[in-house]
Amino acid sequence: MKNLTLALVGMMIVHASHVKGQDRARDFGFEFGVIPTGLLNAITDVEGVKVGQVTLIEGESVRTGVTAILPHGGNIFQEKVPAAVYVGNGFGKLAGSTQIQELGNLESPVVLTNTLSVAAALDGIIDFVFSFAENAAVQSVNAVVGETNDGGLNDIRGRHVRPHHVFSAIQEAASGQVAEGNVGAGTGTTAFGFKAGIGTSSRKLPPTMGGYTVGVLVQANFGGVLQIDGLPLGKILHQYSFRQNLESLDGSCMIVVATDAPVDHRNLERIAKRGMMGLARTGGIASNGSGDYVIAFSAHKEMRIPHDRRNQPSNLVHPLSNDEVSGLFLATIEATEEAIANALFAAEDMLGKGGRLVKALPKDQVRQMMNDR
Amino acid sequence: MKNLTLALVGMMIVHASHVKGQDRARDFGFEFGVIPTGLLNAITDVEGVKVGQVTLIEGESVRTGVTAILPHGGNIFQEKVPAAVYVGNGFGKLAGSTQIQELGNLESPVVLTNTLSVAAALDGIIDFVFSFAENAAVQSVNAVVGETNDGGLNDIRGRHVRPHHVFSAIQEAASGQVAEGNVGAGTGTTAFGFKAGIGTSSRKLPPTMGGYTVGVLVQANFGGVLQIDGLPLGKILHQYSFRQNLESLDGSCMIVVATDAPVDHRNLERIAKRGMMGLARTGGIASNGSGDYVIAFSAHKEMRIPHDRRNQPSNLVHPLSNDEVSGLFLATIEATEEAIANALFAAEDMLGKGGRLVKALPKDQVRQMMNDR
Amino acid sequence: MKNLTLALVGMMIVHASHVKGQDRARDFGFEFGVIPTGLLNAITDVEGVKVGQVTLIEGESVRTGVTAILPHGGNIFQEKVPAAVYVGNGFGKLAGSTQIQELGNLESPVVLTNTLSVAAALDGIIDFVFSFAENAAVQSVNAVVGETNDGGLNDIRGRHVRPHHVFSAIQEAASGQVAEGNVGAGTGTTAFGFKAGIGTSSRKLPPTMGGYTVGVLVQANFGGVLQIDGLPLGKILHQYSFRQNLESLDGSCMIVVATDAPVDHRNLERIAKRGMMGLARTGGIASNGSGDYVIAFSAHKEMRIPHDRRNQPSNLVHPLSNDEVSGLFLATIEATEEAIANALFAAEDMLGKGGRLVKALPKDQVRQMMNDR
Amino acid sequence: MKNLTLALVGMMIVHASHVKGQDRARDFGFEFGVIPTGLLNAITDVEGVKVGQVTLIEGESVRTGVTAILPHGGNIFQEKVPAAVYVGNGFGKLAGSTQIQELGNLESPVVLTNTLSVAAALDGIIDFVFSFAENAAVQSVNAVVGETNDGGLNDIRGRHVRPHHVFSAIQEAASGQVAEGNVGAGTGTTAFGFKAGIGTSSRKLPPTMGGYTVGVLVQANFGGVLQIDGLPLGKILHQYSFRQNLESLDGSCMIVVATDAPVDHRNLERIAKRGMMGLARTGGIASNGSGDYVIAFSAHKEMRIPHDRRNQPSNLVHPLSNDEVSGLFLATIEATEEAIANALFAAEDMLGKGGRLVKALPKDQVRQMMNDR
Repeated sequence: MKNLTLALVGMMIVHASHVKGQDRARDFGFEFGVIPTGLLNAITDVEGVKVGQVTLIEGESVRTGVTAILPHGGNIFQEKVPAAVYVGNGFGKLAGSTQIQELGNLESPVVLTNTLSVAAALDGIIDFVFSFAENAAVQSVNAVVGETNDGGLNDIRGRHVRPHHVFSAIQEAASGQVAEGNVGAGTGTTAFGFKAGIGTSSRKLPPTMGGYTVGVLVQANFGGVLQIDGLPLGKILHQYSFRQNLESLDGSCMIVVATDAPVDHRNLERIAKRGMMGLARTGGIASNGSGDYVIAFSAHKEMRIPHDRRNQPSNLVHPLSNDEVSGLFLATIEATEEAIANALFAAEDMLGKGGRLVKALPKDQVRQMMNDR
Repeated sequence: MKNLTLALVGMMIVHASHVKGQDRARDFGFEFGVIPTGLLNAITDVEGVKVGQVTLIEGESVRTGVTAILPHGGNIFQEKVPAAVYVGNGFGKLAGSTQIQELGNLESPVVLTNTLSVAAALDGIIDFVFSFAENAAVQSVNAVVGETNDGGLNDIRGRHVRPHHVFSAIQEAASGQVAEGNVGAGTGTTAFGFKAGIGTSSRKLPPTMGGYTVGVLVQANFGGVLQIDGLPLGKILHQYSFRQNLESLDGSCMIVVATDAPVDHRNLERIAKRGMMGLARTGGIASNGSGDYVIAFSAHKEMRIPHDRRNQPSNLVHPLSNDEVSGLFLATIEATEEAIANALFAAEDMLGKGGRLVKALPKDQVRQMMNDR
Repeated sequence: MKNLTLALVGMMIVHASHVKGQDRARDFGFEFGVIPTGLLNAITDVEGVKVGQVTLIEGESVRTGVTAILPHGGNIFQEKVPAAVYVGNGFGKLAGSTQIQELGNLESPVVLTNTLSVAAALDGIIDFVFSFAENAAVQSVNAVVGETNDGGLNDIRGRHVRPHHVFSAIQEAASGQVAEGNVGAGTGTTAFGFKAGIGTSSRKLPPTMGGYTVGVLVQANFGGVLQIDGLPLGKILHQYSFRQNLESLDGSCMIVVATDAPVDHRNLERIAKRGMMGLARTGGIASNGSGDYVIAFSAHKEMRIPHDRRNQPSNLVHPLSNDEVSGLFLATIEATEEAIANALFAAEDMLGKGGRLVKALPKDQVRQMMNDR
Repeated sequence: MKNLTLALVGMMIVHASHVKGQDRARDFGFEFGVIPTGLLNAITDVEGVKVGQVTLIEGESVRTGVTAILPHGGNIFQEKVPAAVYVGNGFGKLAGSTQIQELGNLESPVVLTNTLSVAAALDGIIDFVFSFAENAAVQSVNAVVGETNDGGLNDIRGRHVRPHHVFSAIQEAASGQVAEGNVGAGTGTTAFGFKAGIGTSSRKLPPTMGGYTVGVLVQANFGGVLQIDGLPLGKILHQYSFRQNLESLDGSCMIVVATDAPVDHRNLERIAKRGMMGLARTGGIASNGSGDYVIAFSAHKEMRIPHDRRNQPSNLVHPLSNDEVSGLFLATIEATEEAIANALFAAEDMLGKGGRLVKALPKDQVRQMMNDR
């Protein structure tokens, strides 16, 4: 099922974890870096991680949605995970960052949506946390919500995302394949002047580098001069619209990094910083108007942090030492670069608010260039 | 009109900028520091600053509200002000901090409320921004919401604050006297084991130190070993409940600092840091569970930052140099210390959720101690 | 032996760990906070911590020195300790901070000296690290040097501190009593207009708060309006010289915090932040010209980080969880406040460069005030 | 004069600002990005900026040096410039960073050298500042020193750089062409397994983007999987040595960014962050062992900050608004990428300590690849 068809069917909620048929960058001959991908080349290659998406396409101007990333399928509030946030460029409305940085952990799903729907997402997450009987006494929830601005295609001022959409995305999150492109929080986003959206990728380090998996999911919605695995597409196509005005460089990218490596907050923050280095390799520049944030967490089971430490099991694993993390840095960079490319390849033309059409990458042209390379 | 009476009248919204009769720390003989106060000894001594509060007291368990601080009475989105945030201890849900830090400005009112009502406050602020005709094309708003947890007295899980309460608090914000104690976002908060709430204070520097005014408003809801202008009340009364458990140290303090000095983001961040030094002087310790944040902004008219810089007037003032800010540091420390004390003195006994009674400072005892000093 | 006599004896190096007879704040009836002190009320109450000091007093204008704090008596480079730095106000030349923050550890002694002798101290530390046979292949050392400016009494431009002085201070560092006042890096420093210098204090948490010890050592050299345990000395004596000019508020404070609690980098950073809250309680304001830094480390034996992780022992302790650190925050605040007071009480009148005399606290007057209190 | 010949001539100090004949990446057909370079494609294209270098090559094992970058040719201490530092990865010994961040300015030349010679560089800078008559009363200097570790080719433990070398490099700094490769602080450094060193590049924005110039100078000494303007050289040559061990990824990069745009500290910090995005485009990953720092300053004449503000001229320029900086971000990314490439192309084979030979890029092979592309 192609996402473009969604535009035809009025209000429709797609729980998109199992959608097939989307194009991916590797299908066109690209390789990114030197580390092999995980099985699905998706953030869900990290054991336990689940993704749920709700896509809102309605009428001529609703083009938005929700993407939820869960570090595990249990009660995240009671079993928090080590986490960190890095602010690449802070022109954004990310909620929950200061508590992650202070306490070093994540106690909610990470929810991505549009800029003006952060409030709805906060409420949806709180509803989700309250839905667990064990959380009946909880009075404080650090709900984590990222966003980019899909107002070019979406009636963003309408605030069409509601808490129940968020609840739904979280509730139906699943492991396995992840839908990319015009889906969830990527429904209305664009990058480098092309239709973009949600993208994902993963890396599995060789045993000599620890054998860990790193998965990345992005909500790509930013500008720059596109290059794909070194192919200077933006230059070739003269597609760098800021020649007219700098504002068209703007836009944002939310980057979520998951790993099964036992990494503590400090090294997760270092990993998060590498997300922006992956973005840089695509030609992104984190322009003034960008809300570029990276949220990194460890999904390693024995790294979980019980809300009530009196329940803490006694034989926890030790976090990796500094000497052991460079491989994770490399994997994060590569997977971020590829996730962004995947967002572009999976996305299809989108007609939205005010009759504006944003076209997808000219994939035939790209295929031709790759044949010539 | 005393705030306690509010508890008798069911659902009631008090726009509390002009309430009289509340006790203040100076009435008991305290002086804080060496710099004189402004005229009202309130954040509204800073020209242009307005405060609006909505108090929600209903039945036995709704004890919450909203306090909005406006840097000026115009269209804040179109005329932003220089601002900065300092995270004293980040166990909190402050929204909007990363954009303030990145761009160095504030484009919305600062709204304080309870921990689980951040979403409602975000929506209320967006509604407010959208209510201006000039903002018809706005698709991105960095709404700034701070909170502390009033769940000891308030049915916080009920999320009783709604966007219209927030809109209302902003709309009716006024200059002049500011209600303190059990009002607005301070309706249900406690500090050092006593009923606390909203407090405010100001300092007017002598001409030799620049002649500027600094105003502070706090939402006090934290623990420690209370001392008031050096009087070790906590020690004398053996009121430091963490002797039972560390958690009772927890709680939070939101601190908003306004000044008419022309200060840029970098020096505002330094000023914000001094807010925590003022808190320290009261005996607060910024315990693990505290969400202690300071938001500082300059209300100097010629420091405003037009949303569209093509509208920028040409004769702007220069921000103060580093050499000129130490007086502002001192003023911030003193005003923060006193604002917290004022929150305690203005607050009155409060009966709330589950029949819990939190008593105010034993003011007669304090008066006696001051007579003996 | 009183330090003042040192001024009479020409060039003299005092290894001052065992000097007796100095006054301490508690001798005058002050108590600071509610947590009991450790045995010596010194940073050396933290097991393993050693302090070494070299005092340089020569002729009329050399009034400076070195204070070295060692987390343990072994090869610190090979057995690093968890550490963090907090910048209270960064008008200072602290060396080594970024690596501590990135890697979360300390691999050298912490050396304090004067502003223009940071280079000499770096070389002295490198010499010390190179003096270990096991370090023969070491090519990179993160030497940590803090400083304050003793140029009011000392011919600071003469750069009289040499690497061998630093080596010597480190080499002869010892546990046990710590000399305070006009000694080591505090030889030429002043605070609140009085002669100050090195001060130290400690806290031992009750078993219900974990039973850990926190020790603090300060190099006090800053301004503000002095209050000692709430006694507003600065106000009473009208000793706040910034009434003439803001610059006289300037000066700096280096604060070193040690604990035997097993705390990781993130929570050590939080502890470090509380050092500035302790400073705030003395009336310090961290003025524009202050270099106020806090370095915190854990001396817990099983928290040591081997340079070569292949040597890492297998049964390491787990760091404290967030819920367990508030007591350490309180202890840090109290010990910092008292360490600064101790620096003032131990210091004696000092005659220095250009015939300038800086007088000590008027201790008789203070004693009288305390009798009257 | 080629640098390799230097190895033959014993101790020799080359003031290398005017050396010709070195290869540059553009000679091989590479273009980096879309913005044109400045006249010399060097940091000295920014008006007023000067570079001085001292190269120490002696016997078989001294391969090190000093590179000094001056924001202007006057008394920098008296006429400071706006500046900021960004820590890409803090495994390094950068001195002076906290004061730059606190005060927002640079008051000394930026000196680059080797890891163990930071102390010598600090003293050399202080000597330089003291050499001005107007600085006779100066007692505090924030000397800024960056470093990378040239211990693979250089007898770094010998600390062969002395303060007079640093003084000399500063003293003889000049505008005009900048020597690259095995020179100054780059004499002994390597990157991606090839001999590297000093590199520089610049961009001149078109008038529609403000017309400003951005210049970058790097001391390249780091690892990763090299790509040059998208050409995946590392992959093609299977040159990513971390397949043996992660440590070989380590190394560092100092990046200095100058601009003639009137930019304040906050936006300079944002510009500095983009330096790491430029490094990312070369295949660098900022591995655990990297000391990657970016120092950015504005050389705009009217942005200078007088040490004594009473001397401040009255008609200062206003700094750029946020909306005007994205072009500078892009220019910084492109110039950093190219400066690193230039360091590799200018460097020549180097034989050093212990007879170790580090070979330069296989330029003939690269030329062939470019012909085939």
